[in-house]
Order: sequence, then C-alpha cells, then structure tokens
Amino acid sequence: MSAAAFRRVAVLGLGLIGGSLLRAVRGNGMEVVGYDTDTATAAAASASGFPVAPSDAAAIHGADLVVLAMPLPDLPDALRSMAPHVAPGTVVTDVGTLKQPVLDAVRATVPQAAFVGGHPLAGTEESGWGAADPTLFRDAPWALTIEEDTDLAAWLRLAELACDLGARVVPASSAEQDAAVARVIGLPHVLAEALALVGLAGGPLGLSLAAGSYMSGSRVARTRPELVTTWCDGNPALVQALDDAIAHLTGARAALADGQSVLALAQAGHAARINWERRRFQPVELTPAVDGLRALGQDGGWVTAVLRDDDGVRLLGMRPA
Amino acid sequence: MSAAAFRRVAVLGLGLIGGSLLRAVRGNGMEVVGYDTDTATAAAASASGFPVAPSDAAAIHGADLVVLAMPLPDLPDALRSMAPHVAPGTVVTDVGTLKQPVLDAVRATVPQAAFVGGHPLAGTEESGWGAADPTLFRDAPWALTIEEDTDLAAWLRLAELACDLGARVVPASSAEQDAAVARVIGLPHVLAEALALVGLAGGPLGLSLAAGSYMSGSRVARTRPELVTTWCDGNPALVQALDDAIAHLTGARAALADGQSVLALAQAGHAARINWERRRFQPVELTPAVDGLRALGQDGGWVTAVLRDDDGVRLLGMRPA
Repeated sequence: MSAAAFRRVAVLGLGLIGGSLLRAVRGNGMEVVGYDTDTATAAAASASGFPVAPSDAAAIHGADLVVLAMPLPDLPDALRSMAPHVAPGTVVTDVGTLKQPVLDAVRATVPQAAFVGGHPLAGTEESGWGAADPTLFRDAPWALTIEEDTDLAAWLRLAELACDLGARVVPASSAEQDAAVARVIGLPHVLAEALALVGLAGGPLGLSLAAGSYMSGSRVARTRPELVTTWCDGNPALVQALDDAIAHLTGARAALADGQSVLALAQAGHAARINWERRRFQPVELTPAVDGLRALGQDGGWVTAVLRDDDGVRLLGMRPA
Repeated sequence: MSAAAFRRVAVLGLGLIGGSLLRAVRGNGMEVVGYDTDTATAAAASASGFPVAPSDAAAIHGADLVVLAMPLPDLPDALRSMAPHVAPGTVVTDVGTLKQPVLDAVRATVPQAAFVGGHPLAGTEESGWGAADPTLFRDAPWALTIEEDTDLAAWLRLAELACDLGARVVPASSAEQDAAVARVIGLPHVLAEALALVGLAGGPLGLSLAAGSYMSGSRVARTRPELVTTWCDGNPALVQALDDAIAHLTGARAALADGQSVLALAQAGHAARINWERRRFQPVELTPAVDGLRALGQDGGWVTAVLRDDDGVRLLGMRPA
C-alpha cells in the first residue's frame, strides 16, 4: 500500500527540499498540491505542471499530510496562518534541521495536528525550485522524531513515504536528534567559520599557502550565514559540543606550548574518522514500538521499509554490525 | 638558461615528493641521482630507469643541488651522515612543511651548505615512489625561504628550478612561513581531529546523521597521525592560531548559552571564505632583493619566472590586485 500512505499531500514552501518532495511524492503516485508565499516560485512550480494552491488554506483543504518546508524564520507566521484550517488528526511534518523548536511551535499553535518532525539530510549547494530533484532523498538519512506522545500510526505512514523515496529513516526523539546534530552539523559549521577567520587573520601570505586542508576545513563557511544560524541557534546541545571541542583544542595548545606533541589527539581523531568510514551494518527487522524504534536510532540504525500485511506492520532496517 | 640552473641534482628520499622531483627535474633536462635508505624504494626507482646511488655520499658527490626529501623524523640522522660529504657552497634545500626546525638543524650540522628551505604544497592522499608524478608541482605554491643571510644567488637558482616545474614560488622567511602554515595547515588538522572526536563522542545516532559538513570538516583527520605531528609539533605560531580559534569558539559558545545567535561569527567566516575564493591577482615584475621578495610573499604574491639576460636577473610574478 506504499502509494496510498497518504491520499493528498500538501507541501508548503517549494524551495530545494519542498520542491524535491513535491516532485518525488507525485512520482510515487500520490496526489500533491504545493504552495509558496513567493509568487515567482509558485508560478514556476505551476508552469512545471504541478498544482499550486492560491493560499495555505486551499492547499491544506482535504490534505491528510501537510509538509512544512518554508524557511525556518517564516515558520511561526506560517503556523499561525494555517492553524484554523488544519483538521484534527491531519499529519503534519517539517524538514528543518533542529526538531525541538519546531515541535514546541507546532504544539503551541496547531495542537490538533498529528505532528511528526522530519529532517531529511539531503541538501546540496544549490537552492530553490529550479534545483528541485525527485531523487534527492535516495540513500539520504531522514530523521523522523518520535516522542512519548507521538501518534505511532502517523509516524509509520510518514516513515513509509520516506522509505519509498529511498531515504534511510532514522528514529529519534527531538532532543536526541538535536543533540546529535549539534556534533555533526552545528559544530562543523562553527569550526569552519573559525578556521576561515583565523586563516584570514594571518594575512595574505597564509592565504596564498592555503591548500587542501584549509579548503576542505572551511568549505561549509560558504553556506549562507542565515542558514547556519537556523542550524545552530537555539540548540542547547551545541554548547556542550563546543565545550568538548574547546577542550581538545586547549589540550593541543597546552601540549604545543610545553614543547610536547599533538600525537595523542591526532591518533584519536584519525581512529575516529577511519572507524566512521569503516562502519559495517547488518539487516534488522522489528515491530513498531516507540522504545524499539528509538533504540534502533540511538544504536546508529535506520528503517528502510515499512511492510503491512495481515499480521500487521513490520519494519525492515539496518543497524551497525 | 632554465635547463642549466643546476648541473646535477641529488634527491635524498624518493617518496611522493622526492620521487616526483626526481622525475620532473630530469624531465627538464638536468642530470639527477636519487637515494633512499629503503632498499625497496631504491630498487623501484632504479627499475624505473633512474640512477640511484648506493649511499648518500655517492649521491651527493658532484651534485650542486641536494634535496632533502626524506621523512622529517629521519632528517637529523640524514644530515649527520651526509655532512662530511657536502662541498662548501653546495645548494641544499628540503621539502618539509615547517621551515625553522630544518633551518636550525642544517645550520648546526651542515653549515658549509648554501641552504634554502623549501615547502612545495603539492601533497595528495597517496604516498610513495609509486605515486610520484612529474606534474605534481604545476600551479602549486612552493615556499622558498629567504633569511637575512640567505645566499641570494642560490635562492634564485632554486626559484628558477621550481618555476620551471610550474610552481608558484612564494618568498618568505622561515618564521613567516611557519606562522602562515600554523593557520592554514596546522590549525585545520587540529580542528579536523577535534571534530572527528566530538562527533564520535555523541554516539552512533550522530554518526548516522553525519553528512557533508562532518565529512569535509574531518577529512584531513584521515592523514597519518605521524605526518600531522610533523606539521604541528615545534611550531610556536600554532599556539597563537589555536588561541585565536578557541576565542572564536568561546565567543560562539557564550552567545548560544545566552540564547543569542552565532550570526556575527557566521557572517565574518562566510566573508573570509568567499573573499579568499574571489582574490584577484595582477602581474608584477621585480629585481632580486631580499626585502622586495619578502614583501611580495607577505603581500600574498609569488614568483612565476626567473629571467636572466645581459642586464641581469628579473623576476616575473603575481600579486593581489
């Protein structure tokens, strides 16, 4: 029943992620409708042959899934505008990097929704409707949040949709997701900004000697600063991640100032990176339950398929070997 | 007279850089001889048709340029072994990342040499004679150190050789070079090690959500730890670079803990990175003089050609516009 996970999917916000979702979901046989507050974006999507509603209310009307894909700063206004039009039990998800702030906002503004936070890790260096690509989610991790009070049936329908788009569905609570993201998305961005600045502060000689390590280390400082703030600000776990990083740097600094070596740090960092690359996974099958799903995510596993038959729902996935 | 910059070039150490130099220098018409303490490496170079000497003394005999291309930890022993065989005035250079430690060692052990430190920024992820590539130096920055007591004629001959291999010769004192390298090579490696570790410390969930930013930010943690130490240890400027980085991270940490934004850091880092990519350069011509050459390097410029005619020596180069 994969093509019938939802009857009608409304995607609010038609940038890279929202636009890619609109294309991919229709490609999987579901009815879709898009909406964007930017009239040029809406016109472009319409010109590409997609139904585009004239208002959020019109887009939401009759939809059993609403995807919040507008820029994060626009989310509060969007929620207030749509709230009166969301029928009780409508499944609502989003595509932002941090999950707790969105969960809090939806609970406060659209409490009648069956909300499941989503975070597809499927960005590229491009953006906008013109870059939308229905294959964007293939093999991409896609966190779907699961709290104690999450509607498990809604979670499973969304997981089924994401799996059918080729994604790896990673179950986690919002707090767990945001803590993980602090270390592997927020921190690398802050480090890249710092590296770009410290390199510059050394003057033009260093900039002409900057090669591969400076280039890859500062690569994500190319990201628009406004986007970086949406991945960092308001995430308390990033404070701890920064403390951990500062501790490593302070240790290296002390060793060097004392005429000692950075060897211990380099060995540990090398092992961490190489072991990350060399992780191996094995298939796993589980029944749908909040605790089991969260444990799978905490263990580094993910769901690849949601199967329904007469005996009920089974989930197939992978977990570290 | 480019092909005659040196009559006979001895390359001691035939790994990626030394092997690439042996190939490139012979390709430019100079007589070359290689040497490596590792008999398998020496045999491989010999089997490839290159003259390989049975000892450092035999390699050095008659050479007017000696290139120290052995691993840095082997350098002190190598210098002691070769010292009795180096004729006064022989030009000696090296290919290591940090220049002050090599300068100090050569001054102490082989004071009769006309030493000019060298640092071609031409690594790849490969290593060894088998990866040697005569085109490795094309468009690569190649720092050549110039101190108050450097033999300017020796510096110019080496610069001519490096330019003829397609490199961008960056003039700098050893201290200036090492200070610059601290910020654009040492620091990005320490940051990558720290990122790899802080990501790992978050547990398997984060490792499964780690995507582009973690991958590029920790890329150079793949480097062998022993190599990283040769680029970091003993460089006092890296202490200051780490202090600067820690200050940025501490500022971001304080902002986040206070419910504020990392926007200011992200904007500054973004501008630094983008402006680095967008640097523009213009041609420059100069006469050979220590002060002028060092100023060129400090300004972010480099030498692309050493021209000799009846009026003497002229240098062509590029500098930021």
